[in-house]
Amino acid sequence: MINLGTVGTGWITESFIEAAKLSGKLNITSVYSRTEDKAKDLAGKYNAAHYFSDLEEMAKSPKIDAVYIASPNSVHFEQALTFLKNKKHVICEKPIFSNTAELEEAYRCAEENGVYLFEAIRNIHTPNFRILKEKLHMAGPLRSAILPYMKYSSRYDVFLQGEEPNIFSSTYSGGALVDLGVYPLFLAVGLFGEPKQVTYYPVILRSGVDGSGTLILEYQDFVCTILCSKISDSELPCEIQGEKGTFVLEDAAPISEIKFIDSHTKESEILSRAQEEKNMVYECIKFAEIIEKNNDQEYEQLKEWSKKVLRVTEEARKQSNIVFGVER
Amino acid sequence: MINLGTVGTGWITESFIEAAKLSGKLNITSVYSRTEDKAKDLAGKYNAAHYFSDLEEMAKSPKIDAVYIASPNSVHFEQALTFLKNKKHVICEKPIFSNTAELEEAYRCAEENGVYLFEAIRNIHTPNFRILKEKLHMAGPLRSAILPYMKYSSRYDVFLQGEEPNIFSSTYSGGALVDLGVYPLFLAVGLFGEPKQVTYYPVILRSGVDGSGTLILEYQDFVCTILCSKISDSELPCEIQGEKGTFVLEDAAPISEIKFIDSHTKESEILSRAQEEKNMVYECIKFAEIIEKNNDQEYEQLKEWSKKVLRVTEEARKQSNIVFGVER
Repeated sequence: MINLGTVGTGWITESFIEAAKLSGKLNITSVYSRTEDKAKDLAGKYNAAHYFSDLEEMAKSPKIDAVYIASPNSVHFEQALTFLKNKKHVICEKPIFSNTAELEEAYRCAEENGVYLFEAIRNIHTPNFRILKEKLHMAGPLRSAILPYMKYSSRYDVFLQGEEPNIFSSTYSGGALVDLGVYPLFLAVGLFGEPKQVTYYPVILRSGVDGSGTLILEYQDFVCTILCSKISDSELPCEIQGEKGTFVLEDAAPISEIKFIDSHTKESEILSRAQEEKNMVYECIKFAEIIEKNNDQEYEQLKEWSKKVLRVTEEARKQSNIVFGVER
Repeated sequence: MINLGTVGTGWITESFIEAAKLSGKLNITSVYSRTEDKAKDLAGKYNAAHYFSDLEEMAKSPKIDAVYIASPNSVHFEQALTFLKNKKHVICEKPIFSNTAELEEAYRCAEENGVYLFEAIRNIHTPNFRILKEKLHMAGPLRSAILPYMKYSSRYDVFLQGEEPNIFSSTYSGGALVDLGVYPLFLAVGLFGEPKQVTYYPVILRSGVDGSGTLILEYQDFVCTILCSKISDSELPCEIQGEKGTFVLEDAAPISEIKFIDSHTKESEILSRAQEEKNMVYECIKFAEIIEKNNDQEYEQLKEWSKKVLRVTEEARKQSNIVFGVER
C-alpha cells in the first residue's frame, strides 16, 4: 500500500479519495487544506489519520509516500515542486501545469529526487481506451475524428453575474481548452500521436480565457476536430472515422461505450466493456503499479503524452493571446 | 402550372420530378439527355410529352417555361446560360457553379432576360428550417455550432480501384465541400449570415479534390464548425449551442427533427413538425411561387444566400489549392 495525501477539498478530491480506496493500492493517510477546519472535516469524512494546513509540513511528513494535488491550476506547479523536492510521488490533476517549461522542470526535479510525477487524466487509463487503441485498425485509413467535450458550467451563471470563478479566470489558468479540451486531446495524442499542425479558434470571454472553442489538429491523412465549451451544452458523442468504418464513443471521458459501424455493411457492434462507475480507480491502479514496480517504460509513455498535450495547449493559447496568471 | 424541362438522368433528377409532381405547381413536359434512348426512357417513365438530346433545341422550345439542371457540376454554368438566354427560368442543382464570377454573370443574364435563376438546395426551403430560424432566439447568445454532413459514398469504392467518378474529379468540380458541405453551409449562412473569416482543413485525394474536411466559420461571438466527408461515415446530428440551450438537428438536410434542450433545466422539447418524405417538394413550391408572383424580395434573399455560400466555398478551395476543371 502506498500512503497518500491529498491537496484540495473540492468534489474532484473526494472522487479521487473514493477511487483510491476502491483501488486497494492507495491508503489515504493525510489531507491538506489552507483552512484547518476544512482539512479536519475532510479527514474525518474519509478516516484519514492526519490533516494539515501547512503544505511544507505535509510535504516533509513521513506519513505520506505520494500526494494527489487538485488545487486551482495556477498553483499546481509550485505545490508539485514542494512535494517532489521532499521525495514524494506527485499525482497532479489535469491540466498539469501552465506551460512546458514548468513541466520539464518538474520532471527533472522528480528524477533528481527518485520519485514519479503523474498527470491525473482519467480517460486514457480506462479499459475502454485500451480496447479502442487495440481495435483502431478496424476503421482502416483514418479520415476524420470529431471529439467534443462541451458542458455548460453552473459557474458560468456566476460569471455572467459579474464574478470570476477560478475556472473562468486567467489568473487561475482557467478556460475551456485546459479544463475540458484536454480529455479529447489526450485521446487524440494517445491514439494518433502528435499532430503536424495545431490551430485554435476560441470564443474569448471578458476575463481573457476561452469559454469555448474549436481546436484543429492536422495529421498526415486526416483532420481531428476537438470541440470544447463551458458556456454551452452538447449531446454529441465522439467519432473516429476511417474508410472502413466509424467508432462512436459515448463520451471522451470516461469512454463509457464504444460502438463500431462498418461503412459498407452498416452493421454495428459494441466493443466496450462495463467500467467502474468510480472511473478514476483505473488511474489510481496504474500510478500505484508504476510506483510499486518501477515501471519506467510506462512512465516514459505517460510523460510523452503529457508533454505533447501541453505543447498543443500552449501553442493554442499563444495563438489566442490567452495569458495565464502565473507565467514563467 | 409552370411547364418544366429537366436536364440529367440520375436519381436526383427522378427525385426532383417526383417532388415537382407532388407540388402541383410544376408540370414536367420535357426531359433531356445527351443519349436519346435515355431521354426517351425517362420521358416514358414520368409521362413527359417531349424528350430532347439537343440542349439548344430544348432551350428554344415553347414547351417549357423553366428547366431543372442536374448535370455534372462543371457543366451547370454553360447549360444554365443556354436556357437563361432563351428566357427560361433555371433551377440549378447545388453546388450551383464553380465560382462567384460565373454566378454574377448568370444572375445578370437572368435579369436581362426577365427570368429567375435558382439554386436547388432543399434544406433551406423546408418548414423545419423556418421553424429553426424563428426559434433560434431560444438558445440565447450563440456560442458554438457543429454541423456535420458526412456520408461514405459507394463511388469511393470505385475511386479506390483507380477510377475517377465525377464526384471525386476536379475536372467535374467534385469534392466533399461542394457536394455535401454546402447543406450545412446554407444552414449557417441562412441562420447566422456571412462569416467574418473562413478556414478550410481538407483531406485531399489523389485527384486533387477534398474527400473530407473541416470548415471553420468565425462569427463575432461564436465559431461554426462544418464537417463534410464522402470517404467516411458519421452518425452525428447537428448542434447549435447557445448559453441558454442547444438545438439538436437530426440532420443538416432535410432537417427531419429539431430538439431544443434547456441548458439549465436539461428539459427538452421537439420543435419540428413532420415533413414530406419527398422533401424537394418544398423548393419546388417556393420556386414556383416566386415565378408566379414575381416575388423579387424572396428572390433577392435566395440570391444573397447563394452568393455568400459560393464566396465561402471559393475561398475554401483557394486555400486548399483545389482547382476545378472549368475555371474562367
